Amino acid sequence: VANKSQPVRASVSWKDNLTVALVESRNPLNIGAAARAMRNFGFTRLALVAPYDAAFREARSAVGAADVLQNAQLAADLDAVLADCTLVAGTATARGRVKRQPGSTLGGAASLLRAHLKRERAALLFGSEKFGLSNEHLSRCQWTLTIPTDPDCPSLNLGQAVAVCCYELARAPASAPRAPARPRLGRATAAQSQRMVEKLLALLDAAGYINPLTRRSQRLKIRRLVERLEISTDDARVLEGMLRQIAWKLDRQSGR
Amino acid sequence: VANKSQPVRASVSWKDNLTVALVESRNPLNIGAAARAMRNFGFTRLALVAPYDAAFREARSAVGAADVLQNAQLAADLDAVLADCTLVAGTATARGRVKRQPGSTLGGAASLLRAHLKRERAALLFGSEKFGLSNEHLSRCQWTLTIPTDPDCPSLNLGQAVAVCCYELARAPASAPRAPARPRLGRATAAQSQRMVEKLLALLDAAGYINPLTRRSQRLKIRRLVERLEISTDDARVLEGMLRQIAWKLDRQSGR
Repeated sequence: VANKSQPVRASVSWKDNLTVALVESRNPLNIGAAARAMRNFGFTRLALVAPYDAAFREARSAVGAADVLQNAQLAADLDAVLADCTLVAGTATARGRVKRQPGSTLGGAASLLRAHLKRERAALLFGSEKFGLSNEHLSRCQWTLTIPTDPDCPSLNLGQAVAVCCYELARAPASAPRAPARPRLGRATAAQSQRMVEKLLALLDAAGYINPLTRRSQRLKIRRLVERLEISTDDARVLEGMLRQIAWKLDRQSGR
Repeated sequence: VANKSQPVRASVSWKDNLTVALVESRNPLNIGAAARAMRNFGFTRLALVAPYDAAFREARSAVGAADVLQNAQLAADLDAVLADCTLVAGTATARGRVKRQPGSTLGGAASLLRAHLKRERAALLFGSEKFGLSNEHLSRCQWTLTIPTDPDCPSLNLGQAVAVCCYELARAPASAPRAPARPRLGRATAAQSQRMVEKLLALLDAAGYINPLTRRSQRLKIRRLVERLEISTDDARVLEGMLRQIAWKLDRQSGR
């Protein structure tokens, strides 16, 4: 078993940086079919999260992929599976789940995911045959990749969904599509950022986090950090509310 | 039953101009899986050429695609199936069959095939699970489309091969791919994000920000917010330190 906190070996293929995680899968045959599809397109790291049937390692549909099944990580929840991933993408079909995370079609996201895998680890999550990924699972994802199925028959078989995604990831890159710069629409105003910095600073002061001797440089660091986050105007409002509440609590307690 | 020599009605989708022909398929389940995959991506015309088991119309794996199976054309040989097609393409994997026809990877050929289907009929042939398409079958094809599988495990399951090809044909043309957010290199690991969410949540609990009745949904909202921020690994470390210090202060005060 590899030590997961070690840096990825240079000789490892970018494909080994992808974990395909099947969440609450019900059918060992589907798990076997998923393993085979992974192997067909050169992927090897499979994780099973809370599968309904632990007999998956014997799945007969995994022709040529017995190694993938034997080495599959079995986990009770997502935490262990996602621990060393710096990107988590959930898969969905056109079934019409409300998107809560930045979404994209599979084709649009694949090249970006591939670029990520050339440097760092990522996980691609597939939900159960019956229910797909829950909102709880999707909340762990930075991206949702939608497989563009027909609205009249949106629900893909699990093994086929894995095949399509692995194919799309492994396919020769279309002439180096450059990621468009992210639009900054909807970002917090400078005034909002400023208020957040001040509130956070006051809170950290009260908590004894700020060293008076280096206050000036710490303030700058905090401001840069807040700018880097590129917080949206809505999120900024929420975060301000949180900071206000914590500050109020601290203040009330210290005054007792 | 439509008279196949009639010109295609204008209202028909280009997808109805494609016949997916499974040649000498052995397994009714695979046929059902192929029918479902076709339906998932909006294709409806299936032809079975000399299948080994005529019980395919009952295949249970065809969830949502019973109509495709019921309307499937059953033929003893390729002639009847290909009669009104002006383009015939065979599929192959990287299994190393000597190419005898002009070949192309699936990705390269799909847009050409799509363009053809917008005007005229075409057939896409899939060989048997065991032997693929014979040289005889391939001699009927103007193109061979190769699905780029891994040489170590080249043989795709039939249902998955159909899924991948239908996906590739149906996918939005490559122009203007909508990309999700910028690449996330250097971002916090899932474990870091998770810790941050937990720490923030604990702090907000202590501050009375969290309503116990809506705790679950608030927790989801906070997690989504943290994911949206796309915090870097370094910033995550700093933020965790801040949260820890504030929590320590709150805790110490409340204990006085």
